[in-house]
Amino acid sequence: MATLGDIGVAAAINILSAFAFFIAFATLRIQPVNDRVYFPKWYLRGLRSSPMKSGASVGKFVNLDFRSYLMFLNWMPAALQMPELELIEHAGLDSAVYLRIYLIGLKIFVPIAFLAFVVMVPVNWTNGTLEQSKLTYSNIDKLSISNVPTGSNRFWTHIVMSYAFTFWTCHILKKEYEIIASMRLHFLASGRRNADQFTVLVRNVPFDPDEQTGELVEHFFKVNHPDHYLTHQVVYDANKLTELVNERNKIQNWLDFYQLKYTRKQSRRPSFKTGFLGIWGDRVDAIDYYTAKVEKLSKEISMERQIITNNSKSIMPAAFVSFRTRWGAAVCAQTQQCRNPTVWLTEWAPEPRDVYWNNLAIPYISLAVRWLIIAVAFFFLTFFFMIPIAFVQSLANIEGIEKALPFLRPIIEVKFIKSIIQGFLPGIALKIFLIFLPTILMIMSKFEGFISLSALERRSATRYYIFLFINVFLGSIITGTAFQQLKSFLHESANNIPKTIGVSIPMKATFFITYVMVDGWAGIAGEILRLKPLIIFHLKAFFLVKTDKDKEEAMDPGSLGFNAGEPQIQLYFLLGLVYAVVAPILLPFIITFFGLAFVVYRHQIINVYNQEYESAASFWPDVHQRIIVALVVSQLLLMGLLSTKEAAQSTPLLITLPILTIWFHRFCKDRFEPAFVRYPLQEAMMKDTLERAREPNLNLKSYLQDAYIHPVFKDVDGSDSDAADEEPEQSPVLVRTKRLSKRSLLLPS
Amino acid sequence: MATLGDIGVAAAINILSAFAFFIAFATLRIQPVNDRVYFPKWYLRGLRSSPMKSGASVGKFVNLDFRSYLMFLNWMPAALQMPELELIEHAGLDSAVYLRIYLIGLKIFVPIAFLAFVVMVPVNWTNGTLEQSKLTYSNIDKLSISNVPTGSNRFWTHIVMSYAFTFWTCHILKKEYEIIASMRLHFLASGRRNADQFTVLVRNVPFDPDEQTGELVEHFFKVNHPDHYLTHQVVYDANKLTELVNERNKIQNWLDFYQLKYTRKQSRRPSFKTGFLGIWGDRVDAIDYYTAKVEKLSKEISMERQIITNNSKSIMPAAFVSFRTRWGAAVCAQTQQCRNPTVWLTEWAPEPRDVYWNNLAIPYISLAVRWLIIAVAFFFLTFFFMIPIAFVQSLANIEGIEKALPFLRPIIEVKFIKSIIQGFLPGIALKIFLIFLPTILMIMSKFEGFISLSALERRSATRYYIFLFINVFLGSIITGTAFQQLKSFLHESANNIPKTIGVSIPMKATFFITYVMVDGWAGIAGEILRLKPLIIFHLKAFFLVKTDKDKEEAMDPGSLGFNAGEPQIQLYFLLGLVYAVVAPILLPFIITFFGLAFVVYRHQIINVYNQEYESAASFWPDVHQRIIVALVVSQLLLMGLLSTKEAAQSTPLLITLPILTIWFHRFCKDRFEPAFVRYPLQEAMMKDTLERAREPNLNLKSYLQDAYIHPVFKDVDGSDSDAADEEPEQSPVLVRTKRLSKRSLLLPS
Repeated sequence: MATLGDIGVAAAINILSAFAFFIAFATLRIQPVNDRVYFPKWYLRGLRSSPMKSGASVGKFVNLDFRSYLMFLNWMPAALQMPELELIEHAGLDSAVYLRIYLIGLKIFVPIAFLAFVVMVPVNWTNGTLEQSKLTYSNIDKLSISNVPTGSNRFWTHIVMSYAFTFWTCHILKKEYEIIASMRLHFLASGRRNADQFTVLVRNVPFDPDEQTGELVEHFFKVNHPDHYLTHQVVYDANKLTELVNERNKIQNWLDFYQLKYTRKQSRRPSFKTGFLGIWGDRVDAIDYYTAKVEKLSKEISMERQIITNNSKSIMPAAFVSFRTRWGAAVCAQTQQCRNPTVWLTEWAPEPRDVYWNNLAIPYISLAVRWLIIAVAFFFLTFFFMIPIAFVQSLANIEGIEKALPFLRPIIEVKFIKSIIQGFLPGIALKIFLIFLPTILMIMSKFEGFISLSALERRSATRYYIFLFINVFLGSIITGTAFQQLKSFLHESANNIPKTIGVSIPMKATFFITYVMVDGWAGIAGEILRLKPLIIFHLKAFFLVKTDKDKEEAMDPGSLGFNAGEPQIQLYFLLGLVYAVVAPILLPFIITFFGLAFVVYRHQIINVYNQEYESAASFWPDVHQRIIVALVVSQLLLMGLLSTKEAAQSTPLLITLPILTIWFHRFCKDRFEPAFVRYPLQEAMMKDTLERAREPNLNLKSYLQDAYIHPVFKDVDGSDSDAADEEPEQSPVLVRTKRLSKRSLLLPS
Repeated sequence: MATLGDIGVAAAINILSAFAFFIAFATLRIQPVNDRVYFPKWYLRGLRSSPMKSGASVGKFVNLDFRSYLMFLNWMPAALQMPELELIEHAGLDSAVYLRIYLIGLKIFVPIAFLAFVVMVPVNWTNGTLEQSKLTYSNIDKLSISNVPTGSNRFWTHIVMSYAFTFWTCHILKKEYEIIASMRLHFLASGRRNADQFTVLVRNVPFDPDEQTGELVEHFFKVNHPDHYLTHQVVYDANKLTELVNERNKIQNWLDFYQLKYTRKQSRRPSFKTGFLGIWGDRVDAIDYYTAKVEKLSKEISMERQIITNNSKSIMPAAFVSFRTRWGAAVCAQTQQCRNPTVWLTEWAPEPRDVYWNNLAIPYISLAVRWLIIAVAFFFLTFFFMIPIAFVQSLANIEGIEKALPFLRPIIEVKFIKSIIQGFLPGIALKIFLIFLPTILMIMSKFEGFISLSALERRSATRYYIFLFINVFLGSIITGTAFQQLKSFLHESANNIPKTIGVSIPMKATFFITYVMVDGWAGIAGEILRLKPLIIFHLKAFFLVKTDKDKEEAMDPGSLGFNAGEPQIQLYFLLGLVYAVVAPILLPFIITFFGLAFVVYRHQIINVYNQEYESAASFWPDVHQRIIVALVVSQLLLMGLLSTKEAAQSTPLLITLPILTIWFHRFCKDRFEPAFVRYPLQEAMMKDTLERAREPNLNLKSYLQDAYIHPVFKDVDGSDSDAADEEPEQSPVLVRTKRLSKRSLLLPS
């Protein structure tokens, strides 16, 4: 068992390595050559130009100003300086609210930790249970509930604290929900005119033998919303066209690569073999070959475009219907149109960027079947994922490799390499699976048929959280695969399950402390370094980049990745709440995580990430709900733990807690969730009236006409207009001044 | 253990007693003096007049036509004759759909019973397990699954049958849901113009220091629904006025009683003592006393009326808002009005008759608290109701009574009476509780704050079903109080619970057969006799009735009582589905119940019941859901039972069933439930357009002005206009012809 000293050493090592990461980051980021890796957001917003254009020849690539190396942590205060309103303007509400998840972690756990250390640690410490028990124990265990003797009256402290922590958490949650709901409404109200405010997505347009979908939609809405209907945009099945365009872009990349090669070394025209991996086949002139291919694809693309626009079969039974007023759209989105509730389904149109086009045409009955398939598949994924991995592991041993690839034998038999393989190989299959898990879950959500990226990410996040809860949290406490747990839970009585888990919890405190440090701290430190984008950028810059526009494309700002990130944060909420009463020693580590993550992600959001879409914080109900789940789990486990400590008279008191918490959740859901799924008519009317007064002659129809065209039609000429589109009416003055001052500080050359 | 013969004897006894009831009914109903007890519905509709006015003096009271006694069952075909469309016109959609619950029972169980007897009974019967086991057993057990040896392959029959039964039930459920949804939409579409089609109930109108509620409502809706708002009606707090009016009606009754007494016996003016129960106090002239009291109350009532209409404090923060079009009302009911989702809550206004006025003013936060209180209270009611009853039982023994009321000793000590008291007394406390349970649950629902009678009844029905499921179904299978069960379930593992219950199921078959006969059959036979209304009517007719109007009021047609009736039917669905695979012998008894009940209730609905409100079958989603619950329970119990029979390889097959069933439920919910909670805009628009074309000059405002006035304001002059109000635009021609022909058959005098 780890002592306090052991933990201290581990913490020191982790802190040092984190510092090493930070120093590496501080050094790399002030090199002009890396500027586009660490500040892509500013480039995309057009507020920063490459520092490599000015200055001396060496100074173009390497920062020679040694003073700037000394202030290697000054990005931290810089990240915290930007006020929240400016941050929302700069990066969108989604990002700003995402940061508030870390902030809420701090708000919940700092007071809890303070209270726990002042009240509970002394109560736990001043017992002699462990000393008398002659078991091996460490100082850490002396700080935890394990040190309180069975049946002691001191458990009342823990019960009272449990109440205090619950009320504090609920209080913060409620306040936060309130703030975010009003932020969302304010954001929607004060936002610029957006196409999605006027537009409703209609799905499952019924088939009519006499009318085309477009006419049908127009007639239906002209009849049923006569005063409000404005225009509509049918949805084309452009999946094939998208494929062709992607194909052409790939070929174009190769063409660019060979052309660049030729311009650098004019002596020989580049050539390659057409066969597998360029190993065999006819040798052809690369530039001619790819030019021909690009031309052929361009022709095919324009033909496919013709087909799509002329053939009525490529019109999908869905449409974006726009209204004269926000009020009309709000009404249509919130009401049922037809007596058959499976056709003419209306909902708010997602932002044009947020639409997941492939899923727009799935019919109603198919959605129901897909839901079932995915539910069953996810159950098997969660409980049986170890089976294929164990199979791969059994194959991937030394003998297996030697048999399959005998020519590798001499290398493998080297003792050093052999031990590495034996040590790492079994773990690698699992690690690869876990890395790809969010992607797998995302594919599952796509199959399930959600129509916006934000909904896809939200659903994937829910699934990922369930997976982490079962396989990481429960899996670490009760060792054994998830399926073994399931089996044992089925064979155990309902009031034994919290007991079994509760009893193991104090013993796992040190494990989770290490987990928080290795997974949490190191993860964040790695996040800020952006090693993968750094390498890829330099590779691309070397092989592909000719013009500034290419350079722009080589940047990979990435985005927040709600589906993978949020569930991991939630795991820390769970750990924090579960251990707050049982072993408060865990709390400082979690607080450190939240603090560090807040600063790092704030920096990343300001300087790096470029969100793909804006959902106006529609994920918050999920975040709120998962914290509530963590709270209820912590209460049930405490109940289980205390019932084994013969503090049974506490059960009625403890059972009240989850009931109150669930009621609180229900209350919050009714009170705040509507702000995230509906759009109040009063708001819509207010905004309409204001706009009518300000711009009485606005031609809304022309504004909305092309808002919801499949991106491939915009993209078809290869012009990537995303970045330009994104914030068209932005007034950059305010931010530019701010940013310039910061740049002059960072890059004094 | 009961043999087939025992069951046969019990069935014969029950059938004979049911016949006795039917003969009694047939005799009583053709007596002219009982006409108003057995045909009140026709009186209320104004389609029948008393047969006592014509004919000879004896024939006025007693039917002397002996031929009519011979055809004592001819009400049965008569009850079945009226086609469903006419039934809907006659008694409303609620009643017609309520009958379909019995019909769906027949549709589900007749084919299942046929299949079970053809396939499963031979499979069960041709085993020798029970004969070899040397246990005591009966022929009934030989028909059940108990007779199949452990580990036998014959269990495959039961699994296949279980699939067949599930698919059949789901098929019928889906078809029925489809039919009823379209019946509802058709009913709403073809119905007359009703105030509730144009009206929305707004609750939680926020407080405004500058404006009165009425003005505030008008401004808000004029701004936010400018093209559609028509008028509104504020809600007054008239609870005190209601009390006063009720008080006056009671006094008026006494006045009538004494006046009648005086007219009959002019010699002496009636007098009574004013003290307790008329035993002591001053003797006063009854007619003068009550006349003065009525006058005083009438004054108080008109004063209270003045106060209510003039004092702004008696205006509640709720209002009925009416719109120009159904479309406008549909939009307002389905959308969120204000950014704060706890104020300006809109929903469809219930029918004026359906409104539960007392609950209209409950603020939002109070609703949330009430919900929690009732949830906890219901938990305790379900699991601990035996505690107070056991307490009462312990008091209510012979010694207790003798101590409390010593003067009764000589009577009690008579042996015969003593044995009766000892035998019945303990049961009586329980029986009284069970009789009052629906009322208790109704009071709980009222406290919870629902605003329409239909919602109150639906919620009470749900609670009653849960109570019956736990205390009657589970309580009979695993003997012991609900709390003991809960305790043992908590201490048992999750996969043991279905086993424990499943194993006991075959053994309880005979018990439930008796239960179906005694509770079901006898209950229905008693229902048709209407003993209680019969006695009360004659008492009233003797003591109070002066005029025909009084006679009208003395009739108590009653209504269906969804909150008490439907859960009991659901219990039979549960029994039928659970025993279909295990012991199919139960099925004929259940089918008999459904068939008998269908005929009896169809008769009652046609001739007796007068529904208080019309909710257009909005209870069907609940009915559907509870049958699904019964199906899933039956599947889980079969799984538990088979796992003890060492047919474990069947578990994966059996676990698929509940998953598919739950998915089916989810599908139906999405597909059909919207028809019961929302009103499609297309329908509204169609109806509006039609109406505008038909009646272009309709003055809707005057039509809607007073539709939602508190009934006490209409009622205040003592004129009961309910019966006249109810079906104002009814064209009675069609039905009258029909009815006349039937009457001439029944009453040939």
